[in-house]
Parts: sequence; C-alpha cells; structure tokens
Amino acid sequence: MARLTLRIDFDGDRAIGPGKIRLLELIEAKGSISAAGREMGMSYRRAWLLVDSLNRCFREPVVAAQTGGAHGGGAVLTGLGRAVIRHYRAIEERAAAAGADHVGALAAALAEAEPPESKEPPLD
Amino acid sequence: MARLTLRIDFDGDRAIGPGKIRLLELIEAKGSISAAGREMGMSYRRAWLLVDSLNRCFREPVVAAQTGGAHGGGAVLTGLGRAVIRHYRAIEERAAAAGADHVGALAAALAEAEPPESKEPPLD
Repeated sequence: MARLTLRIDFDGDRAIGPGKIRLLELIEAKGSISAAGREMGMSYRRAWLLVDSLNRCFREPVVAAQTGGAHGGGAVLTGLGRAVIRHYRAIEERAAAAGADHVGALAAALAEAEPPESKEPPLD
Repeated sequence: MARLTLRIDFDGDRAIGPGKIRLLELIEAKGSISAAGREMGMSYRRAWLLVDSLNRCFREPVVAAQTGGAHGGGAVLTGLGRAVIRHYRAIEERAAAAGADHVGALAAALAEAEPPESKEPPLD
C-alpha cells in the first residue's frame, strides 16, 4: 500500500508537516511535551522549541502549559491545536482519495522487488 | 498563499517526494544528470545515486543514459520517467484542490506576523 504524507508551506517561512502534527497528537495523548518528544526520540529542548514555533505561528497558542510549568505541570492542546490536527488529517485523507488513481498507477509501475543497491556511479 | 508538497511512500522503503521529482524535471530540461544535480546544489555522485535508486525502484528505468556515457553523453527521461512526473504533479494538483478549504482554514488561523523566535525553553 502507498501512503501520502503532506507538508504545507505558508507565507513567512512557516510550515506544517507530519512531525509537528505527530508531536501535537502525542501531546494530546500524553499531556506532556517531554513525554511526547521522548516518544519521537526528541530531546525536551527540541520538542519545546517546536511547540514554541507552532504557538508563535498561529494567532493563538496551540499548546498551553498547565500550571506547575515546564517539565512538571504538563501541557494540553487548545481548541485551535485540536483544529490544526483535524484540518491537517482531513487534507491528508482528501488528498489520498483525490489522488488514488494516480498513486495506483505509480504503484503499478514499481518493480516487484528492488534489486540490490549499486554503490557507486560509473567512473568519469 | 499556501503550498502543498507531497511525499509518497510505497512498500519496501521506496518513496517519491519533491526532490526526486524536481531532479527528473531538471534532467528532462537539461539533458544531463550532472547539470540537473548542479542546479539543485547536489554533487554528481549524489544525483547519480538518486537516479540509480529511481531506476531500480520501477519496473523499467526512468532515466536513460545516452551513448557517450557518464558525464559526457547526457541523459534523457524515458516514457515511464515522464509518466512518473505527470502522476506526481497530478496528485499534487488534486490534493491542493481537494484540501483547499482546510488549507484555507489553517492559513486564516496564522498569526499576522510571526514574533521573534524564543531561543531557549524555560529552565527546568
């Protein structure tokens, strides 16, 4: 089976892709930025910076720290945070449906099994 | 304006995304793997390896070296190579159309201007 993944680039160097969306989903599931980051093999610092960049990207925050702060207090998605996930997953679903025949044509053109990798280009 | 970019993952760790498609388009335009790679800031070796991986990924080659070989002889897209580009760009176009309202909703939720970046997470 083929799987589509989307990246959406907005004006001003702002983008949403599978990593940020997955991080938001994990924050929702785990109630913690550090636990969500850990699940993705990310440092707390990196997860926090991604959340911070998402929060600054939108008119309102998508993740709210609960009192207790930083590591301790946990984090929850805001209504906008949940809406961002919903829109992204809806675009993904519609894209897969709308492109299914072309994706199928590409999949049908694939080799049965990929032969072993050539390691080097031909000599100049 | 928002712009969608697609990555398609197939079975067996095979994927097509914007970089490989752009490389194919540039090979078609320039008739040369090295010139296409150069345009993307890639070494000849890296461009060649990407083309090789694409050629092995499909039932038939997508790029054919013209006689003269390697650097010298140039390269052309096969019919399948042109079809791969066409399918990919068609999926992209349909995805953008099918997801337009959700993309619009995300774009409408963006901040007017992004405030300056926070450099560090809060102290633990």
